[in-house]
Amino acid sequence: MGEKRTRKRMPRAVREQQMLDAAVRIFGQRGYRAASMDEIAELAGVSKPLVYLYLNSKEDLFSACIRREAAALVAAVRDGVGAAEGTSADRQLWDGLRAFFTHTAERPDGWAVLHSQARTQGEPFAALVTAMREEMLAYVTSLIAAAASEAHGDPAPSQRQVAGLAQALVGAAESLADWANRDDSVSAKEAATTLMNFAWAGLGGLVEGRAPTAPGATPGNR
Amino acid sequence: MGEKRTRKRMPRAVREQQMLDAAVRIFGQRGYRAASMDEIAELAGVSKPLVYLYLNSKEDLFSACIRREAAALVAAVRDGVGAAEGTSADRQLWDGLRAFFTHTAERPDGWAVLHSQARTQGEPFAALVTAMREEMLAYVTSLIAAAASEAHGDPAPSQRQVAGLAQALVGAAESLADWANRDDSVSAKEAATTLMNFAWAGLGGLVEGRAPTAPGATPGNR
Repeated sequence: MGEKRTRKRMPRAVREQQMLDAAVRIFGQRGYRAASMDEIAELAGVSKPLVYLYLNSKEDLFSACIRREAAALVAAVRDGVGAAEGTSADRQLWDGLRAFFTHTAERPDGWAVLHSQARTQGEPFAALVTAMREEMLAYVTSLIAAAASEAHGDPAPSQRQVAGLAQALVGAAESLADWANRDDSVSAKEAATTLMNFAWAGLGGLVEGRAPTAPGATPGNR
Repeated sequence: MGEKRTRKRMPRAVREQQMLDAAVRIFGQRGYRAASMDEIAELAGVSKPLVYLYLNSKEDLFSACIRREAAALVAAVRDGVGAAEGTSADRQLWDGLRAFFTHTAERPDGWAVLHSQARTQGEPFAALVTAMREEMLAYVTSLIAAAASEAHGDPAPSQRQVAGLAQALVGAAESLADWANRDDSVSAKEAATTLMNFAWAGLGGLVEGRAPTAPGATPGNR
C-alpha cells in the first residue's frame, strides 16, 4: 500500500479543492500573470498535467478561484446577517460587516484575488468580480433601506441616497480590509469597529467625542 | 510652408503632453496589456517611432502616465484645501474632497489609470500608485487630526483611530468616484454630497433624518 495508491483514492472533488487552495494562495500573492502553474501544482502536491486535466487551463483555474472566493465571501456576509435575524436592521447590517472583516482577515489571499488581482485582468475575470460586488451592494442597499425605514426618519433618505450610501460603505469596507491585511497589528475587529464608528456616528460625531450609537459598536459589546 | 514643417516646430514638451493625453485615454479605456502603441500614436497624431523616441517604451510611457495623473490629482486636492485656508480644518477637508470628485469626473481616464489599471500590473507601476495613495492618506489623516483638535472632543480620537478613519474616508471616496464615472446620471457634486453626508452625519444620523452638519454639505451652500 504505497502513498500513491492512497492518493489516487482521494475523491476528485477533494483533490480539486486542494488545487484551488493552492491556486488562490499563489494568485493572491503573485498576481495572475506572474503566477506559475508549476508552483501551483507543487503547492497542491500534484502533477501539473493533473491540474490541467481537472481545471483545464490557467484561465479556467483563475476563474474557478474567483467564483469560489466570491461565493464564500457572500455566504459569510449572509451568514453574519442571518445570525442576527429577528433583531433590528441596523444590527443585522453591522453583524454582516463584522462577518466581512472576519472573513477577509481569515482569507487574505482570497481577498487579494477578488479585490486586487481579478478586477483588472480583463474579461472574463472582471465580470465575475463585478457581479459579486453588485450583489454585495444590492444587499447592503436593502439593509440600509430597512434600517432607514425602521428609524422612521424625517425626511427619510431617498432610494438614490441609499444607493450612494451603500457605495460609500462598501468602499470604506474594502479599504479597511486592505489596511487590516497589510498591517499585521490591525485586527479584523479593529477594522470592523473603525468602520462602525465612522459609519454610524460619522466623522462629525467622532471629532466631537460623541459616542457612536451603532449596535455592537461599543468595544467589548459582544 | 507645409503642415509638416509647422508640426516640427512644436516644442518637444508640448508634443510629449499630447502623447501622454492619448496614452492616458487608451490605457484608461483598454487597460495596460490591451492598449496598443499604434493606437496611442494615431490618437496623438504622431508616428509610432516618435512615441518610442520620446517616451522610450510602453512601460516607460505607462509610468509617465501614472506619474502625471497622480501629480495632477494630488495637486487638485491640495489646491481645493488651499483655497479654504484660514477657515476651519473640517471645511478644508470637505473642500479637498469636493476638489477630488471634480477632478476625477473631469479626468475619468486618468482616474481609471490610477485606480483600476496601474495597481495590479506589477512593479514599477503599483509602487507609483501606492506612493500617491499613501501621500493622500497622510494628508487626509492630518486634516482629520486638525479637525478633531479644533473640535476639542472628549475623548479625542487617538492617532490610530484617526489613521483608520482616513482609510475609511479614502476608500469611500474611491468607491464613489468610480460610481460617478460609471453612471452618467451621477454628478461629481452628488458624489461629493453623498460622501459629506455619510461621513459627517454618519449613517445613524441619516437614517434618523438628522441633518448633516458638515460645512458645505447642505445642497446649494456654495
